[in-house]
Amino acid sequence: MRTEFELIDHLTKTYGLRHVGDDCAVLPKNALKDMVVTADMLVENVDFRLEWATPESIGHKALAVSLSDIAAMGASAVWAMTSIAVPEKRWRADFVERFYDGWHQLAREYGVELVGGDISISRGGVVIDSIVGGEVAKGKARMRSGARPGDSIYVSGTLGGAAGGLRMLETDAASDGKGELLLERQLKPRPQLMLAKLLQQLGLVTSMIDVSDGLSSDLAHICEASSVGARIYADRVPVDVELNGHFDAAECLQMALNGGEDFELIFTSPEKNILLPENHKITLIGEVTANVAIIEVISDGETSVLEPKGYRHF
Amino acid sequence: MRTEFELIDHLTKTYGLRHVGDDCAVLPKNALKDMVVTADMLVENVDFRLEWATPESIGHKALAVSLSDIAAMGASAVWAMTSIAVPEKRWRADFVERFYDGWHQLAREYGVELVGGDISISRGGVVIDSIVGGEVAKGKARMRSGARPGDSIYVSGTLGGAAGGLRMLETDAASDGKGELLLERQLKPRPQLMLAKLLQQLGLVTSMIDVSDGLSSDLAHICEASSVGARIYADRVPVDVELNGHFDAAECLQMALNGGEDFELIFTSPEKNILLPENHKITLIGEVTANVAIIEVISDGETSVLEPKGYRHF
Repeated sequence: MRTEFELIDHLTKTYGLRHVGDDCAVLPKNALKDMVVTADMLVENVDFRLEWATPESIGHKALAVSLSDIAAMGASAVWAMTSIAVPEKRWRADFVERFYDGWHQLAREYGVELVGGDISISRGGVVIDSIVGGEVAKGKARMRSGARPGDSIYVSGTLGGAAGGLRMLETDAASDGKGELLLERQLKPRPQLMLAKLLQQLGLVTSMIDVSDGLSSDLAHICEASSVGARIYADRVPVDVELNGHFDAAECLQMALNGGEDFELIFTSPEKNILLPENHKITLIGEVTANVAIIEVISDGETSVLEPKGYRHF
Repeated sequence: MRTEFELIDHLTKTYGLRHVGDDCAVLPKNALKDMVVTADMLVENVDFRLEWATPESIGHKALAVSLSDIAAMGASAVWAMTSIAVPEKRWRADFVERFYDGWHQLAREYGVELVGGDISISRGGVVIDSIVGGEVAKGKARMRSGARPGDSIYVSGTLGGAAGGLRMLETDAASDGKGELLLERQLKPRPQLMLAKLLQQLGLVTSMIDVSDGLSSDLAHICEASSVGARIYADRVPVDVELNGHFDAAECLQMALNGGEDFELIFTSPEKNILLPENHKITLIGEVTANVAIIEVISDGETSVLEPKGYRHF
């Protein structure tokens, strides 16, 4: 069975689509700015479970995943639409109001305005489509395709926390407040819009993507789009310290390499030493190579090839 | 149980939403143009049935309903995104490719480019979110709120055909090519973008909406937004002639007044005689009154109040 990525590739070629394949589409807005726009569909029991998440946190996450796509372009978010299909029992139980409460709490932080969308009854579970539009200085959207051999590879924050939170939910390990910060990373991710803005001001980024599928997969998207390879150092990968005590060291590294939904930023830069204000953490984890489509990982002096094992949508 | 419209009203007031409540949101684009944007969710067994429609026709209709919203603003369509959740068996059976074939056939007619979207597995039926962005000369978007007492009320094309087609599908009356044109109106509606463009060139329209819920409901939306009333003449309503022979005269009129999904345009104008090229049919069906929120219908010399009996989403 072909994958989602194969289908998108097929559609792109068949219909000559010129704006598909990055975190957002970039379209001309005016003399000074481009518009960016993205849509993310969240499906009950695929992307979230109502046993694990409140309607408010689902509203938060639906917006956060799209804001993260806006951040990955180095853009600012401006407007949003949400379409939502809910089964009748959840419609009666004010799911939608609580969803929008959580949505708006996050939207206010970034000045995003809800301008439209749709609401429907669903015959299955809850399905949400989250659309966000933003803007960026003309020609300055950071694409996946700009990485050059020799560039340094950076990642923001820490990785693996969201995967750890998901594992705890799946194994029923989350009780008595255990792993609370991991659950927060899974259920209420933070989009990195402020960091994206800072990086744009510095003007040092050659390519960027957000960690939605997992470091190995998302870095592979950059390599593919840029026709480059990458070498990363396992001991530099910023593994979420909250994983310690819940998982062994090998599991923690696997979650950091392949776990998705951390919604941090991966970016490349010719600069080897980027200084940011203290509240923004970025880590240099490796470099771009000319070894097209190959990601090498160096661990204890040994080199191996890192396969993209992040989230495969289907 | 509150309706969809009551919920949207609640959200609009709670969060001070300034761009919600018309066929599209209107946002500033550049010095000359505004951007319009709309989203429509189509849910299997609510908005369409796979026993009745091919994947291609569902692709056509998903785009058509959003293009119709763009037309209702007097705007032109430019770009689109579609998000789609499909159960695994339909993914295997190339539902998505065929959906996009139908989608693109219509998109090509209007020069609309697919720039993004999302594809996901569904645990229930097929769910589609259709997003279209367009543009209109600055300040010239035709809102629902511009109707003034004394304006004439026009409707394009004919009404009731889509409802007739739906009834035939529901009652299994469509066989041996019977009512083919009615089925076409239900399954492959035509958005009125060319007419909208012509009307914009004439500059005579004070308010506009598309017939998605049905004449009685959609005209009520104009009355509410414009704080006016309306008087229409039953014998002037352009009932689809294809309904004859399948339904009696009273049923035909009911379908024309309350049936949805014809995707024609209702608009108001101070002009009592608008001349258009022959291939565009519009009919003057009544006038705007100061009788706020009341739609009178005059039939055989008798006046009665027309309640909005169009499609209630839930």
